[in-house]
Order: sequence, then C-alpha cells, then structure tokens
Amino acid sequence: MDEFDLIHSITPHTLHHTSVDVGIGDDGAVYTASPDFQQIVCLDTMVEDVHFKLEYSAPEDIGYKALAVNISDIAAMGGIPKFYLVSLAVPSCWQAAEVQAMYEGMTELAKLYRMDLIGGDTVSASDKAVITVTVIGEVEKGLACLRSSARPGDVVFVTGDIGSSAAGLSLLLGETAPSAFSERDYFIQKHKRPVPRVQVGRFCSQLQHTALNDISDGLASELNEIAEASSVTIEIEENLLPVHPDLRTAHSKWKEWALFGGEDFELAGTVSQKEWTWLLDRCKASGVPIKQVGTVYERKEANVLMKTADQKRIVLEKKGYNHFK
Amino acid sequence: MDEFDLIHSITPHTLHHTSVDVGIGDDGAVYTASPDFQQIVCLDTMVEDVHFKLEYSAPEDIGYKALAVNISDIAAMGGIPKFYLVSLAVPSCWQAAEVQAMYEGMTELAKLYRMDLIGGDTVSASDKAVITVTVIGEVEKGLACLRSSARPGDVVFVTGDIGSSAAGLSLLLGETAPSAFSERDYFIQKHKRPVPRVQVGRFCSQLQHTALNDISDGLASELNEIAEASSVTIEIEENLLPVHPDLRTAHSKWKEWALFGGEDFELAGTVSQKEWTWLLDRCKASGVPIKQVGTVYERKEANVLMKTADQKRIVLEKKGYNHFK
Repeated sequence: MDEFDLIHSITPHTLHHTSVDVGIGDDGAVYTASPDFQQIVCLDTMVEDVHFKLEYSAPEDIGYKALAVNISDIAAMGGIPKFYLVSLAVPSCWQAAEVQAMYEGMTELAKLYRMDLIGGDTVSASDKAVITVTVIGEVEKGLACLRSSARPGDVVFVTGDIGSSAAGLSLLLGETAPSAFSERDYFIQKHKRPVPRVQVGRFCSQLQHTALNDISDGLASELNEIAEASSVTIEIEENLLPVHPDLRTAHSKWKEWALFGGEDFELAGTVSQKEWTWLLDRCKASGVPIKQVGTVYERKEANVLMKTADQKRIVLEKKGYNHFK
Repeated sequence: MDEFDLIHSITPHTLHHTSVDVGIGDDGAVYTASPDFQQIVCLDTMVEDVHFKLEYSAPEDIGYKALAVNISDIAAMGGIPKFYLVSLAVPSCWQAAEVQAMYEGMTELAKLYRMDLIGGDTVSASDKAVITVTVIGEVEKGLACLRSSARPGDVVFVTGDIGSSAAGLSLLLGETAPSAFSERDYFIQKHKRPVPRVQVGRFCSQLQHTALNDISDGLASELNEIAEASSVTIEIEENLLPVHPDLRTAHSKWKEWALFGGEDFELAGTVSQKEWTWLLDRCKASGVPIKQVGTVYERKEANVLMKTADQKRIVLEKKGYNHFK
C-alpha cells in the first residue's frame, strides 16, 4: 500500500457537515463557518514512549485518545466539535494496517460527535511515532467558557471522577498490582479511552458566567489556571474530591493521583450559586456525574487552597508538567 | 526556564487581527470568521533527520520553513493566511533558547503576512524533534482555487524557478561540490527559506477558473494531481521549464530536480488563454516571475506528457513520495 492508497483508505466517503466545501484531497480544507458562531481551534500532540507505549496501547486506542484530548479542549470552551485534521509521523517499521487502525480509533469517536476528518499529513518518523490532532469547533458568539470567568461566591465543580486515569496508567505500567483493584478495567479504560465531556461544556455555555478547564494536567493545575486568570482564590475540600471508591480505599496514592495525576479529561469549573442547581439538574438528567468540590473567594494569599480531611488548610501548587527545568 | 515561562516568552503581545477573541492561554483559541469568506485549514509536519537536519539548519530556519510550507498551501488555495498553531515535540537535550529561536523564525515570516500565533503545544520528544504547524486562512466565498478547475485549452504556468531547492539540499548534504555553482547561497536559501507565493494565489482567486497547486512534491506530481482531479491531460515542454541558468548549465541532475525534486513551494497552475495575459501583467507589475510551461488538453492516455528537447513525447509519472511501499 503506498501513500496514495493509504490516504484513499482513510478519506471519509461521506461527511456529516455540508459546510465542508473541500475535504481531503486539495492543498487545504475549505469550510463555511456558521453565522452567529465563533470558531474554536485546538491542537494537541502525543509522542510514543512519552504519552503512550505500544506495549499496552493498541493503535486504535492511541488514535482514539489523540482525538479525545482535543475534543476535550473544545468541551472546555463550551463548544461543539466539528472537524479534525491529523498529522502522523510514524517510523518505517509500522505497517499500513497499524496506521489505518489508528485512524479507525479516531473515526469511532468522531462518529459519536458527527465530526469530519478534513485534512492530514502522514510522514516518516525517524524513530518514535508522533501524532498531532487539530480540532475545529464552534460556539455561539459570546458564549465561550473562559478561564477568567470565575467570580467570588461561585461553586467549584468537577465532573466524573479524578485520579482514575493515573491509576489506570499505574496498572498498565505494572507499578500497581492488578489485585489492588476489583475494577481494573474501569481504570485502564479511563486512561486509554477518556470520554470528553462535550455535553456538560454545552450546558455551561448557556450559563451567565462559568470558568471551565478540562483536567489534562491534574485538578490542582487546572484550578490554579482558573484562579490566576480570574484573580480569585479557589478553596476545595479533600473530602469532596470525586474519587472512585475502589481507588480511595485501596491505594495510598489516591490523593496524589486525584490532584496531580492528570489525563482524566473531566471538566473542572465554576458557576454562580444561583445557576448551580440548574447545571446539576441538567447533568443528572443526562446521567453525567457532577459534584461541588469547593467555593470561589476574593483573592487571598494563594491561588488554590484545600481543606484537608483533618481540617488543615494547605496550598495546592500547580505541579504542572515542566518540560524545561 | 519552565514550560510556563517558555509559553509566556513565545506568546505574542499584540495581535494583527482583532477577530481573535481568545489567543494563547485557554483550552482553545477562539476567533470570529469574516462574513462572506470561507475558512481554509492546512497542516504540515517536519521531522528531524527526515525533513531537516540540525547540522545544516538553524532552529530559526526550521521554524521559518515549517510555517512557510503551510502558508504555501493557503496560497495554493488562493487564500489569505491569518492564524497559525504550532505543535513542537523536542528532545530534552534541546535548550529553551533553541525552542525560542524556532518560534522566532516563524514570527519573522508571520509578520510579513500579518499572521497571529493563536495556539500551540510543546511536548517532550523521545528522540528527534517533530514540528507540526496548522495554518488557518480565508478566501472569498466561491473563489478557492481547486485542483479540479483545469479546462482544455488552458495555459499551464509555473512561478519562480524549480529544482533550486533540491540543488540547495544537495549542496547542504555535500553531494554537490560548492564549486558547481556560482550562486550557492541562492539555492541554499531556496531550500531553507522558501517564499510562499501568496500574492500570486490571490491574483488567481480573481480569475474565472484556475487550478492551482504548490510545488511541494515536484512539478510532475503536482501536475498529475491537477490533471487527475480535472480529468484532463497536461502537456509541458522541457525547453520551457523555468530553471535557474546556473543550475541548467552546471549540473546533470537539473531536469530530475526540476520535475521531481520538490520543496520549491512555487505555484503550478492553469488559467484560460483569455486571462493569462492579465495574470502575467499582474505578476510582472509585482515583480514575481511566472512562465507558461505548457497547455491543457482533453483527456488522453496519460495525465501528464512532456515534449523533450529532442522533440519526443514522454509520460511524466507522479513519482510522489511513497511512505508505504
């Protein structure tokens, strides 16, 4: 199979959006933006042996996740994901079937959101695979959920549970014994196939004001970003952290994973007390777990504080990933 | 310098376009599309030791070229480049200063086109650097220059000169002795810092019909794509190929490089006889070399034919890059 056959095999035969005027096959994709909407663009990269390992992730999983983390960014802006473009650098030892499988993992997820693949690039990697996905979405004008929108008095919330992805990774790496958890597969799936919270993001876009981040670098990091951008202090409670019961009881690292593990791709955000019930009801009706974990205050000495189980107040630092130390 | 400092240092302080509602610093970039325009999106990837080598390219050059090849795709659609997003996977041995230099190379070029950097991602590479750039542009509704627009009778044209980038690469790799050319630097610059033909693309967008490709994979490949998409046959003449005189006289490979070398990032296209003079005049007035190299015919047995210097007709195959053999 040569590059042209490969492109042919991954080019979608039908498109969900009639606004795609030119898809794959010319120098660039062309689409018509919806009037009354703003365009949202995100891009994220996954590197073999840094973000995934072929020993424990199938190409389908890698493709799925590379798209999922970008959709999650659109969700965190309150937007509707629409299009995606893929750059794939793969070593020559990869078979065409593996590349196709990677695209299939993406297609599987894209179908759920009626997203169209509109462009891409497949090149030779010198050694390890690198996959970059660009996602384009849209949001009604003025309704994007920005980090700077937190206000004192707001409820701080988190969807789903956190720390599970880190637990899954620990299982995959063999650092945690399989016997530690009864629901092993749950954690592994949370790591390999996170579900972006698009629906919650859409609910949030309808609120008067809401700050929103997806949890890619860990809850502590995301809340620090919101607090910084909004010039407020966020205070959360350890006892309120939404952590899977299996994890909380079985593993000493649960707190570290929940706060700093990252890759949960849940949403963390703030909403006014008045609108919190509305959001809660919407999420309940849709079967999406969501939970208050704290409150927003006027700016104090730190960005993020946590009341521990033994009633102490500690500062939660970003502990984000530092590439250049 | 940590990742946050780095992001801060590369985040533009001013934006050219007021249509950028949210730039770097949130989960995604948000912009408002111009009414009456279509959106164009392209993405291209460059891999260390596959597309560039650090021995002969400075980080500034690599950044410049990674952006240039994407702008060239926008040019080939007849569009105006507006925004770009960068994904950079760099090995841990790279210094922050090198990453900044790469961004500076991009900024230098972006300024010329009043383009804004609106997003990005810097991650650890396991071994070799990989840089993916996404460019977003726009074109007036219905005016995009598509490959499928060639019609029998059209003039086939090429801008600038071709084969020079391949000659430059050959010099850089030490395969061609420096003494072979008097204008060495010209060829090396053509390889390291190609100039995207945005202005010619914009002229073409105003034509009744025009098929347009940028020459990334070599003239033969680009013309094959136009002929295929338009269901026509393109016939060119060897004697008309725009090749730098230094190259044509000095190197036995000039023809191979001109037809199959690629990375010239000139434009190849077709235009009606009637409008050819208009395009020619426009290019002349703007100081951009452009030349007729052939004619479009009704579909014959091959996509692309070339009349050689000794009056034979040969078939020009794609000879595109095949990743999977």
